[in-house]
Amino acid sequence: MTTSTHESPRKASISKPRDREIHIERVFNAPRDRVWRCFTEPELVAKWWGRGNKLVVEKLEVRRGGHWRFVEHSPDGVHGFEGRYREVTPQTRLVYTFEWDGMPGHPSVETAVFEDLGDGRTKIVNDTLFFTNEERDGMMSAGMESGLNESYEALDRLLATIS
Amino acid sequence: MTTSTHESPRKASISKPRDREIHIERVFNAPRDRVWRCFTEPELVAKWWGRGNKLVVEKLEVRRGGHWRFVEHSPDGVHGFEGRYREVTPQTRLVYTFEWDGMPGHPSVETAVFEDLGDGRTKIVNDTLFFTNEERDGMMSAGMESGLNESYEALDRLLATIS
Repeated sequence: MTTSTHESPRKASISKPRDREIHIERVFNAPRDRVWRCFTEPELVAKWWGRGNKLVVEKLEVRRGGHWRFVEHSPDGVHGFEGRYREVTPQTRLVYTFEWDGMPGHPSVETAVFEDLGDGRTKIVNDTLFFTNEERDGMMSAGMESGLNESYEALDRLLATIS
Repeated sequence: MTTSTHESPRKASISKPRDREIHIERVFNAPRDRVWRCFTEPELVAKWWGRGNKLVVEKLEVRRGGHWRFVEHSPDGVHGFEGRYREVTPQTRLVYTFEWDGMPGHPSVETAVFEDLGDGRTKIVNDTLFFTNEERDGMMSAGMESGLNESYEALDRLLATIS
């Protein structure tokens, strides 16, 4: 049940493969260790995760059971996000809960897999599971796709500057 | 698909009505406002929630978006539990996430409804939703039922002492 795909390599491919799930794929022009660092080092996360807006990384405990909490300061207001790591496999895989302060008590679970494409590029495959289809569809209609693409474009720019 | 019920009014009735769900009912010999206080005041929660074991209430922010965190010191070890309130309707209804430190990143959502039975007694109806059936069944096989009954018996004893 794919609902949207994009030809541009600069847009994330987003689909709804099964009930309660969102599947996202995106390729980055950077080796896997560099992409991994951008997801796990606070000073790097702060530079892309908030779509180019100011982002305060209040907590980023990248280990099983660790918590994370980011606060984005965007033109339309202050938005907090938080969760907890279920699994951390260095360079390869992160599983964590994700919750937006605007919908407290409605966590989803994200599995992010970092694939080394062998040519200096990295593909991130992200599967998100919600408690209900309503929560998933609400997230998608709340501008998730454009927000995600803005963040990933900020990540492209950041990856080009680090080594 | 009811899997177990109990005749004794002192045991909680526990069933699996639908996929990914647990349904629990239990009657307490106390008026609703007193039962509500035992779920929302830290010094009262500390006296029953941990099955009679020492319980440290690290956080109990009973409001939409607020966090809670309890640490139980039992003979078999120290167990932390935490979550966040989705909904707080005084005297009537609490909806919150529930996560055990031993399974981080595997939250469930609990809806607790407090029914005034009109005769000085209160029924608590608790519906829990998990992300998967495996998480639900794992929780049930991990001694949830006996732990719950021990906590509710401690709550019976507490309710008899407060006014």
